[in-house]
Amino acid sequence: MEESEKEYPFLRACRRQTTDYTPIWLMRQAGRYMKEYRALRKKYSFLEMCKNPELAAKVTLQPIERFKLDAAIIFSDILIPLEPMGVEFEFAKGEGPVFHHPLRGMKDVEKLRVIEPEEETSFLMKAIQIVRKELERKIPLIGFSGAPFTLASYIIEGGHSRNYILTKNLIYQDPNTWDALMEKISVMLIRYLNAQIRSGVQALQLFDSWVGCLTPSDYEEYVLPYSKKVIDGVGKSVPLIHFATSSSTLLELMKRAGGDVIGVDWRVDIREAWARLGHDIAIQGNLDPVILFGPVDLIEKEVKRILDRVEGRPGHIFNLGHGILPNTPVDHVAALVNMVHEFSSK
Amino acid sequence: MEESEKEYPFLRACRRQTTDYTPIWLMRQAGRYMKEYRALRKKYSFLEMCKNPELAAKVTLQPIERFKLDAAIIFSDILIPLEPMGVEFEFAKGEGPVFHHPLRGMKDVEKLRVIEPEEETSFLMKAIQIVRKELERKIPLIGFSGAPFTLASYIIEGGHSRNYILTKNLIYQDPNTWDALMEKISVMLIRYLNAQIRSGVQALQLFDSWVGCLTPSDYEEYVLPYSKKVIDGVGKSVPLIHFATSSSTLLELMKRAGGDVIGVDWRVDIREAWARLGHDIAIQGNLDPVILFGPVDLIEKEVKRILDRVEGRPGHIFNLGHGILPNTPVDHVAALVNMVHEFSSK
Repeated sequence: MEESEKEYPFLRACRRQTTDYTPIWLMRQAGRYMKEYRALRKKYSFLEMCKNPELAAKVTLQPIERFKLDAAIIFSDILIPLEPMGVEFEFAKGEGPVFHHPLRGMKDVEKLRVIEPEEETSFLMKAIQIVRKELERKIPLIGFSGAPFTLASYIIEGGHSRNYILTKNLIYQDPNTWDALMEKISVMLIRYLNAQIRSGVQALQLFDSWVGCLTPSDYEEYVLPYSKKVIDGVGKSVPLIHFATSSSTLLELMKRAGGDVIGVDWRVDIREAWARLGHDIAIQGNLDPVILFGPVDLIEKEVKRILDRVEGRPGHIFNLGHGILPNTPVDHVAALVNMVHEFSSK
Repeated sequence: MEESEKEYPFLRACRRQTTDYTPIWLMRQAGRYMKEYRALRKKYSFLEMCKNPELAAKVTLQPIERFKLDAAIIFSDILIPLEPMGVEFEFAKGEGPVFHHPLRGMKDVEKLRVIEPEEETSFLMKAIQIVRKELERKIPLIGFSGAPFTLASYIIEGGHSRNYILTKNLIYQDPNTWDALMEKISVMLIRYLNAQIRSGVQALQLFDSWVGCLTPSDYEEYVLPYSKKVIDGVGKSVPLIHFATSSSTLLELMKRAGGDVIGVDWRVDIREAWARLGHDIAIQGNLDPVILFGPVDLIEKEVKRILDRVEGRPGHIFNLGHGILPNTPVDHVAALVNMVHEFSSK
């Protein structure tokens, strides 16, 4: 850790150290709600932007130039490392990712390749290096990946899913294939996340966005060991945020899997979530992204409610409960960031 | 209450009285997974089947003839009472309901009509009467409706939704319209559910399937008063099951809204849910519907796990955590029903 990093409010909060105000960043803070982003997207596809280091760096910095955010997050997608593993997909218009050959059995797992992240996702590592230079130690940079369950469910379902029937059936009916798949993904993620650290990210977020479809006992048996393996394999050199949605019944198990910070969605009261987790871990969240559509006095009321529930305890990072939505008014995002800083200032 | 009803295990469990075994019924137990149902669906549309009393009665009884279920539930849809209110929709192939004119403001609320359920949904009342006769006091019959929030969200979103942006924006930006809409729906539901009781249903289930998208504080402010109004307006002549999904953080608030039984999905451990609710209320659940795809020893393991967690406490009704899925093997459903009876027998 560089000396200057000790002063970043975001990194201090990850370590439950006191800060002058509550730090804030927003999931998908670089995205479609910003006209600067949409202007670039007219010229390049989403994947083109992810795979071009200069563009990815530029997009990463767009919200930093516009808002007083306390962290940047590198512009990328959780599916990026799947392509070098041999998983083919594309982003169909307005439909999210579509996988051409959803995984069906052990043979498909055997075909998955070990990746060399510094070579095969060199564009991401390059983008991280550019952003670090551009930020000039103003705020820290977060790297990220999907968690093993969320990546596995995409590979098996072939895209977004409503009921996760294919994924669960694979878990239940072919547990050896499930274990082999999760093992390969976990090994890949350890390499991928460590490469991001070597490239310069100062914190990590593990997105287990879809794990809320499971029973707590299934999470414990089929998911926790692999999430833990990844988090253990990343080590303690940078703080790690472990995030999921619809996960209010999984919080204690997510803590067991690991992470310095647990990210929660809006479905749970943040005070109750933190009490259940114990105050020996930091917490991130938890404004409903729809609140940002306003009006501004509603945003104010909700920000105050969340800060009140946290009671000024060190170790709170303000964020949305999930990614910022397209069409979110930019002025409201600016207002939110300022409010969080103002209302939490001591 | 008729003398014979005192002996129905399902109704006894609703009242937390002891039973010789744990009663079981399944949400959507009359449905696409049964070939008898699919045979009828080839000749009639879904809505035709709902609106023809003889067909609705026949479909209601199909799973009763096939499995040793402890309750029947009248074949209908939560959207049925919306049509006489003046809300137009259709079931598009494979897409679920599509509403032609999603609600946008107070003018649309003002157009909604008070319904006369005994006349305008007479087909449902007739179907209830037929089924009661056919069942000859073997097992009780459950009536149902959607809860105010879930119906309101359909009317506003125009169908299924991922993020409930339109619904939440109406709540936040036009609370008077929201209150007027919820008030009208609640008044309608009280009339509709009481008409079902007069027609012969011996229990009710209120489905608040989509309410899990809200923060607990929004549920408390914008939904609870209306769900409570409906439940209070139905009275205590038959037991009422209050059901929602992704609702593990709302359980205490749902209990405050009312109901004799709280229905929970699989995302929460049933023992923890019941402990949080308190044991002065019955509980229904909570097998993940995907478990029914098998194998059978997995179903056995999960049934035993749930029964173990309940510890034989009176007041548990076994059910899935949400509706039974299409393509569920019929043999597995039969095995489930028998297992629950066998493993819970004293």
